[in-house]
Amino acid sequence: MHAFLGNAQLPSTPRGDRLEFSEWYAEVLRSAEIMDVRYPVKGMYVWLPYGFEIRQRVVEKLRRKLRETGHEEVLFPTLIPETQLKKESEHIAGFEDEVYWVTHGGLKELDEKLALRPTSETAIYPMFALWIRSHADLPLKIFQIVNTFRYETKHTRPLIRMREITTFKEAHTAHATEEEAEEQVKEAVEIYSSFFDELGIPYIASVRPEWDKFPGAEYTVAFDTLMPDGRTLQIGTVHMLGQNFARTFEVTYETEEGDQEYVYMTCYGISDRVVASMIAIHGDERGLVLPPDVAPYQVVMVPILKKGVRRKILERAAEVEEMLREEGVRVKVDDRDMSPGRKFHYWELKGVPLRIELGARELEEGTAVVFRRDELERETYAFEELPDVVPELLEDIAMELRKRAREKFEKGIFRTDSPEEARRLVGEGIVETGWCGSERCGVRMEEEFGGDVLGTPYPEEDTEFERCPICGETAEYTVRIAKTY
Amino acid sequence: MHAFLGNAQLPSTPRGDRLEFSEWYAEVLRSAEIMDVRYPVKGMYVWLPYGFEIRQRVVEKLRRKLRETGHEEVLFPTLIPETQLKKESEHIAGFEDEVYWVTHGGLKELDEKLALRPTSETAIYPMFALWIRSHADLPLKIFQIVNTFRYETKHTRPLIRMREITTFKEAHTAHATEEEAEEQVKEAVEIYSSFFDELGIPYIASVRPEWDKFPGAEYTVAFDTLMPDGRTLQIGTVHMLGQNFARTFEVTYETEEGDQEYVYMTCYGISDRVVASMIAIHGDERGLVLPPDVAPYQVVMVPILKKGVRRKILERAAEVEEMLREEGVRVKVDDRDMSPGRKFHYWELKGVPLRIELGARELEEGTAVVFRRDELERETYAFEELPDVVPELLEDIAMELRKRAREKFEKGIFRTDSPEEARRLVGEGIVETGWCGSERCGVRMEEEFGGDVLGTPYPEEDTEFERCPICGETAEYTVRIAKTY
Repeated sequence: MHAFLGNAQLPSTPRGDRLEFSEWYAEVLRSAEIMDVRYPVKGMYVWLPYGFEIRQRVVEKLRRKLRETGHEEVLFPTLIPETQLKKESEHIAGFEDEVYWVTHGGLKELDEKLALRPTSETAIYPMFALWIRSHADLPLKIFQIVNTFRYETKHTRPLIRMREITTFKEAHTAHATEEEAEEQVKEAVEIYSSFFDELGIPYIASVRPEWDKFPGAEYTVAFDTLMPDGRTLQIGTVHMLGQNFARTFEVTYETEEGDQEYVYMTCYGISDRVVASMIAIHGDERGLVLPPDVAPYQVVMVPILKKGVRRKILERAAEVEEMLREEGVRVKVDDRDMSPGRKFHYWELKGVPLRIELGARELEEGTAVVFRRDELERETYAFEELPDVVPELLEDIAMELRKRAREKFEKGIFRTDSPEEARRLVGEGIVETGWCGSERCGVRMEEEFGGDVLGTPYPEEDTEFERCPICGETAEYTVRIAKTY
Repeated sequence: MHAFLGNAQLPSTPRGDRLEFSEWYAEVLRSAEIMDVRYPVKGMYVWLPYGFEIRQRVVEKLRRKLRETGHEEVLFPTLIPETQLKKESEHIAGFEDEVYWVTHGGLKELDEKLALRPTSETAIYPMFALWIRSHADLPLKIFQIVNTFRYETKHTRPLIRMREITTFKEAHTAHATEEEAEEQVKEAVEIYSSFFDELGIPYIASVRPEWDKFPGAEYTVAFDTLMPDGRTLQIGTVHMLGQNFARTFEVTYETEEGDQEYVYMTCYGISDRVVASMIAIHGDERGLVLPPDVAPYQVVMVPILKKGVRRKILERAAEVEEMLREEGVRVKVDDRDMSPGRKFHYWELKGVPLRIELGARELEEGTAVVFRRDELERETYAFEELPDVVPELLEDIAMELRKRAREKFEKGIFRTDSPEEARRLVGEGIVETGWCGSERCGVRMEEEFGGDVLGTPYPEEDTEFERCPICGETAEYTVRIAKTY
């Protein structure tokens, strides 16, 4: 890769220091060349080649999962006419303050304003009305990977809160019955769960409270993860739309009996935040730590050259490269004219899972030194073992990253029935407590504990809590509260 | 694939009838399920799953070529601030009438209007100014695949003239010297040539006349192909930008001697039109004819079921499917409950290169009937031959499509020094004639012959013509004129 920004070094701030996370994050995005934040529009950034590679691999992973489960890929226009966007009243009420409007074409004012899609329901469902005629057309499951826009007034931050979300992977489905739509919600939750699992991103799924569901949905299941500063990040949502949008956009089908019925719909999406959380959760004081599945290079080889055996070392490196490539490993030999130490540093910053060091000594002994980015430890292997060992190590790294992240995540979930405890712990992580289920008490919790209600566990479970800490009535649910991004 | 629009039939208009091309094109896009034109914004359309698959394969082909030649992929924001877009005066003059403007965020008017990118020079080059410091950073070669927007006032048409171009593959490069930039223009022309060749799209490359070059460029090399109605379609452009944008956006580098110099730049792009031309040029009265490389399915197998041997035929089909998949062939068994005739029709419309028919007779004889979409002819092969024969046939189809298209294209190029001939032949195809080189005569030709000047041959060649048909002076160039899309 081209060294866009030179070999900038991460400031050596200690890891885990909460106050520093925000600084660490900005610095890693910059120095590992993920995104350039200097684009002159607030909240809009440039994906650099290395970041783009990671993004592509993450996208392809989800694309594969969606295709395997029968979702077909489409692509809708970016612009939505005002009348269409405003058709569903709850929906537009939820987005009104955040929509970018195109009002002019050339020097001429447009007859009708066009919205830059904040999300695509109102673009897609009028076409569903044309595509769906009978029960034989159902279920209909589509997805698209697009950019969406939100005129954010809160503090913007790359990949976390952007005015142009560059990679919204949104699926939309229509079904004949409510049960099938409920099944689809479950399938979506499964797809997303396995997707996050494979990236080692820990999460909990919650049914968002009424006052925080997707505008126009019956209910919303949201995935939240925990960032190093103790705040949660919403990384995916699944919405049961019921027949709400179907009524607005007249999406009907003819049943086997010949009646016209409204379809039941669901939609679900994942944004750039999946990359943000992956970076934040696995990274350390040396920079990125990438899950092998999505690392642009899985192995980098650094020849430690020495006069006399220079050529032999490079030949051996080429041999290893060839061997690993045959095993399907993405490998790069770094033969730049630069000290090995600087190369080590460079590729650690970039999060490459494995480094192979090859010097005069290894050449002589028929070995190679393998350095694991996740554990920061070296081990020596016989040369011939590499084609077996490297794929195993890559698998092990993926597992370890996932395990480590999950353990840390679990430690950030606190169960308490004491309001004082809850108040103290919100900000450290996710607080679970009892809830009578009333909106009044939910909102009071947000005020008193100083966090947001994430919702109740999905799938639903019996609560272990006895009382609602606000009103003292019987707890009907477990509720989760946290400071959120 | 989901049958989005049912199994609509193409009207049986004879192929090659010029007056009908426009109708044929619209009907093929609809019935082969490429794009849905019913989206309620003029000039903006929906990619359907089958069309999207083709689009993706075309995109991946070019992406691979760009990466192999050292271009790195990035992704820039969609919106460009007004001051930035207007910085280069020639450039904005060329786009002013066509730019969509975002003026409001939520209910608030923006401090500065934002343009939906019509093209990305003015978004990218200010970042080049930040990225490039010294000669060691050069050459810089990047590309991105994005949507761009033009408020077109001319007649819009899917994939040919759209208000949202959904798939603009644009590359931008910076170099230390003019010679290197000139070399880059050549590399770009080579990349595009091999790209079009592999899709069997015939073309000529011309240096556009001064009055039709890219706004802000020193010169423009454009690829034109010929549509079935005798009009040319511009399918790719390569621009030598010289130091023009570098001066505007202060893109400088430090030379080895320590001086600050402006870089030399080039840019080049290909839009959705590559798909339009591929469809138009290879298609016939039965629908699409897809080059095997980009066909979602390369082989479709239609079992001709008969009582008694039903299961055996399906088993054999599964066997063939497995055999071909091992050869890397994209194959589908169509076991829908539908007559074989309807299936034949369906997959011919969709342009699948090969169809394998398997019935009781073939089962008994140990053979299979293979139907070529390009030649509309059947041949019988022994069952065991299929893994060898099918890949060969696919290659042969690609070659034949290319050859056939090239032959037809050559027949649409006319050389004449008579103004009367030229006037008569413009509209039939591309007319080549002599030219003194003056803009005055060029513009007169456009008026008198009723076409547009495409430009002079690239690479430059000595003209065979003696006189400019307008002024009668010595012809310095060969010039090409055609009716254009």
